[in-house]
Amino acid sequence: MTTDVPTLAEVRAAATRIAPWVHRTPVMTSRRLDERAGATLVFKCENLQRVGAFKARGATNAVLGLDAAARARGVVTHSSGNHAAALSLAARNAGVPAWVVMPRNASLPKVDSVRRLGGEVVFCDPTLEAREATCAEVAARTGAALVHPYDDHAVIAGQGTATLELHDEVGALDAIVVPVGGGGLLAGTSVVGRALGMDVYGAEPAAVDDAARSLVTGVRQPPTGGATVADGLRTALGARPFEIVRRNVTDIVTVSEEEIVAAMRLVWEVMKIVIEPSSAVAVAAVLERRLPTEGRRIGVILSGGNVDLDALPWLAPR
Amino acid sequence: MTTDVPTLAEVRAAATRIAPWVHRTPVMTSRRLDERAGATLVFKCENLQRVGAFKARGATNAVLGLDAAARARGVVTHSSGNHAAALSLAARNAGVPAWVVMPRNASLPKVDSVRRLGGEVVFCDPTLEAREATCAEVAARTGAALVHPYDDHAVIAGQGTATLELHDEVGALDAIVVPVGGGGLLAGTSVVGRALGMDVYGAEPAAVDDAARSLVTGVRQPPTGGATVADGLRTALGARPFEIVRRNVTDIVTVSEEEIVAAMRLVWEVMKIVIEPSSAVAVAAVLERRLPTEGRRIGVILSGGNVDLDALPWLAPR
Repeated sequence: MTTDVPTLAEVRAAATRIAPWVHRTPVMTSRRLDERAGATLVFKCENLQRVGAFKARGATNAVLGLDAAARARGVVTHSSGNHAAALSLAARNAGVPAWVVMPRNASLPKVDSVRRLGGEVVFCDPTLEAREATCAEVAARTGAALVHPYDDHAVIAGQGTATLELHDEVGALDAIVVPVGGGGLLAGTSVVGRALGMDVYGAEPAAVDDAARSLVTGVRQPPTGGATVADGLRTALGARPFEIVRRNVTDIVTVSEEEIVAAMRLVWEVMKIVIEPSSAVAVAAVLERRLPTEGRRIGVILSGGNVDLDALPWLAPR
Repeated sequence: MTTDVPTLAEVRAAATRIAPWVHRTPVMTSRRLDERAGATLVFKCENLQRVGAFKARGATNAVLGLDAAARARGVVTHSSGNHAAALSLAARNAGVPAWVVMPRNASLPKVDSVRRLGGEVVFCDPTLEAREATCAEVAARTGAALVHPYDDHAVIAGQGTATLELHDEVGALDAIVVPVGGGGLLAGTSVVGRALGMDVYGAEPAAVDDAARSLVTGVRQPPTGGATVADGLRTALGARPFEIVRRNVTDIVTVSEEEIVAAMRLVWEVMKIVIEPSSAVAVAAVLERRLPTEGRRIGVILSGGNVDLDALPWLAPR
């Protein structure tokens, strides 16, 4: 299979294209986390990105990458998470419509977040088939371009810009670690990491380790269906991301639910920033030394900060 | 009464002195909070300061301001909060001992935080008399210099450096808003604010409004003994801060407990940073427009981020 892998030049072009519309997020450090990891850690704070997640990068790059005629017809996606908000924002910034197909049982905050950013929510039954059918129906009716959350060349190139910015700001890194769900962030990161001489690691909850097993077996594995607090990472690994990841990535490591929750809480307590459980997966991987850390300079992408503040995972259910 | 009020030059000197030992904290903005306030808000993130609070500034300035002989004998204070950790850190950085007098019933995290930073905890009975007597005893025995949390010239000058940095970074502001408890931060802020042409506001929980009533009556009022979620602001207003505040401050405004909790939650949710309830008091003051906000450019000092993550105030007690 031949996959068109984004090049470093494409990621650089994406960075220039999206710069007016996304934040150049800050980089943070923590002595206490360094001590725990035995490494020098630099955290790229995509939790402070617009819409609270790195997804603003890929979605913006995808919308701006459409030719003028296609862009004018707008975009459509199916997602109930950060990509839905990100695509709504990107479309609004470009002055074009966005349709977001969401399951009828999506939580109200997620629906509100899309609507606040100007996205038009189209409800469907809560099955993958219904989502895809509804998406296709909207695309046929409106001429909108489908922007997939991760199985998309321009989205992957956009997600790579976070690591590019980090490298521009802090210089050479021995390794970069990001969470892996659908694989868009890991694929984009791996393009940049490999070109700039970093080891590239994906971090995944052990409960949903299909990406780790895909890398080991060389064949894309179906989702485990397991339960994890890192709800952003329950997604199936995408075909296109997998083809990129398998060529570029050093390893995909796994962490337990307890390790994810402990890492999330430690970052809130010590670094005073809100990260979502998916971000904590990458933090846990370095704190638990699931990859070589000792004496190394390691970048960690804090992928997002969208959390239900009424249901924190270290508090027992009420 | 003549009070020696720190000058802008003293605050500038403090900024230079403490610069190697404290963070130059980031400045953040939020479109959503701007909309709520009707203002352009710039937030100085002292929650991201060392020890998680602006107190690192004043304590460091006080320790470094001692002459070499006095400094070598170390420092002592009574505090169970952020100042205790800040003084321990400042002393450790200067290579001198710090004794911290704490009530026997202080929470374990607070005791641990002082010890982790090298402070020696001296327990006493949980009364103001016992604290002061124990403090005096330690000072007599060791020769350590007392560094009061807020009723101290060098501490006040040090706290003013946060506003100086903010002004250096973002330029002219119409107003600056900070929480007021003992008054050290407000006093230091007021020196800088007044010299640089800003209106200066203190923000206080209505439940413990002794500073607001002190400003109105012109006579320092005793603590109300009221209950507030903003535990850092239960302190009595200091004599020295009050003399400075009454000359320089535009107004002290109050907010309700509900407003404090809502502002705290909104900052976590929208800005993705952890702030403590005391910080939220200043945020609430601008969101509730307790001071003139419309069309103005207003600085807000986010004073700290030390929170018990097991007892968030928007969750009912468990």
